[in-house]
Amino acid sequence: MPNCQPNKLFLTSQEIEQIQEHQVAGHLALGGKLGPQIDESGRFCKPLQEDERGSREVAFYEALYSTSKVKKQILRFFPVFYGTHITEASDGSGLHPHLVLQDVVSDYLKPCIMDIKIGSRTWYPQASEDYVAKCLRKDRGTTSLSLGFRISGLQIYRGKKSGYWKPDRKQIQKFTADDVRSVLRKFVSSNQLGDSDCKPDSPPACYIYGGFSGIFQQLLELKSWFEDQTDFHFNSCSILLIYDGESEKNGGNPQSTIKLIDFAHVFDGNNVIDHNFLGGLSSLIKFISEASATQLSKPKWLDAPAA
Amino acid sequence: MPNCQPNKLFLTSQEIEQIQEHQVAGHLALGGKLGPQIDESGRFCKPLQEDERGSREVAFYEALYSTSKVKKQILRFFPVFYGTHITEASDGSGLHPHLVLQDVVSDYLKPCIMDIKIGSRTWYPQASEDYVAKCLRKDRGTTSLSLGFRISGLQIYRGKKSGYWKPDRKQIQKFTADDVRSVLRKFVSSNQLGDSDCKPDSPPACYIYGGFSGIFQQLLELKSWFEDQTDFHFNSCSILLIYDGESEKNGGNPQSTIKLIDFAHVFDGNNVIDHNFLGGLSSLIKFISEASATQLSKPKWLDAPAA
Repeated sequence: MPNCQPNKLFLTSQEIEQIQEHQVAGHLALGGKLGPQIDESGRFCKPLQEDERGSREVAFYEALYSTSKVKKQILRFFPVFYGTHITEASDGSGLHPHLVLQDVVSDYLKPCIMDIKIGSRTWYPQASEDYVAKCLRKDRGTTSLSLGFRISGLQIYRGKKSGYWKPDRKQIQKFTADDVRSVLRKFVSSNQLGDSDCKPDSPPACYIYGGFSGIFQQLLELKSWFEDQTDFHFNSCSILLIYDGESEKNGGNPQSTIKLIDFAHVFDGNNVIDHNFLGGLSSLIKFISEASATQLSKPKWLDAPAA
Repeated sequence: MPNCQPNKLFLTSQEIEQIQEHQVAGHLALGGKLGPQIDESGRFCKPLQEDERGSREVAFYEALYSTSKVKKQILRFFPVFYGTHITEASDGSGLHPHLVLQDVVSDYLKPCIMDIKIGSRTWYPQASEDYVAKCLRKDRGTTSLSLGFRISGLQIYRGKKSGYWKPDRKQIQKFTADDVRSVLRKFVSSNQLGDSDCKPDSPPACYIYGGFSGIFQQLLELKSWFEDQTDFHFNSCSILLIYDGESEKNGGNPQSTIKLIDFAHVFDGNNVIDHNFLGGLSSLIKFISEASATQLSKPKWLDAPAA
């Protein structure tokens, strides 16, 4: 069966099965454009950017998986890296080198995803004046500067009838701090989306953010790592928050997880912690703790007078 | 006896005793310039800046001491605020409103001081394009951008013979990451300054940074507060690290302490943590933990072969 195994150097377009329908941000392989695809064995094939961004991303994955400094407990927050392969590009332009990565949502029936770009500064110190100015404008025009992060994309499963809520890019770019608060609550509260096939106040979604293995706990583990690690500076990198909207609705395990993605602007940390990422991550943790507190507050029916 | 008590609205120039000789950064009241002075009762009288910076600094101190949200445990990291008073300015221009604050080094025989401006960004989001560009240039030209903080001034007491080491402003502005590492080690290691009246490897300065009440522990307490507090954003504010060089040399209590100063650019936090300050503070903590580790490493004489 054809797949993106490291021992196979070329994939034909027939072997590339589909675009990643659950991708919420970044370049999409739609309408003949160059973008990531899913291969037969469910791996995420991301075209390497042709300039230094492509080589930086490969170098990062290689360093991440070759250094003994990064423990398994932290490696689980990154997609598994299977190497690079030359396969046909989604835009029909012919063979193109791709990163072969774990498809981080392949185990999810109805993946609910939020892509959050971390850092109040998305440019890197070595960048050109033009690049700095462009990023700075975007950081000031979105919540990056004020909150230390911005939502870059999201989809929330609302039930069989309504499917996914997936606001478009322009709508997301205009999010204010209050929109971010609201969306972080909505993300784990399917009954707040006004879908008629959702029972009010059901099921308790508290274990998506909270609980021993919830998103909140995972973010705290990641934060501990960032307080210490000085190998990498993650400029303009995202954290994906993911859970299963189907399992969650059936009272099953929502498989809440976080994954870091997009490493085209990762640089050597030069023995300094990534204070820009850490600050943004700490702010996100505070926002999520507040969203959890709202979410965990007493349901309205408890306020009803006794019969 | 004349002093800056809140019930006294005017001080004459005779009542202002001296300039603060241990000030290591900021505007100095030297050569007929406007700057802070020490009154007879040892209080630090800082002239209010005439534009919005002056009113913002007063508003900050008033908010800090009026809100019940800030616990005593955290308030001890700020100078005591005695109000504002109109006194004669140090530049001879006549009466001028001043902030009346605790002189944070008055209890020290030989104060060793480091002024560290915290944050990789020293501009505030509401600032004008010109101001942003000016600060950004300075942040990129110093260690602010790379380390999340920069040293703005320092003095280290080297003993009776050599007095203080107080590098000038231009020298400090050129500090690289390695200079910062070196200076943080020197700051607590008087024997590294090459002064002949210092015994080598004596006395153990480990309790300046380390120990139950050392600078490291105080910075961790401050960090906990910054992970939670959303009332204030401290743009372009400094942390002073202070200890007594005389007591330390005599094996006494070095009175290690940290104080936050300079609040002309503090703004409402709008329910968001100060991720810029927190990131820089976390980076400083990492640097100090490394300086302590070097400092606490086995003294050289332990390597000497047994007699």
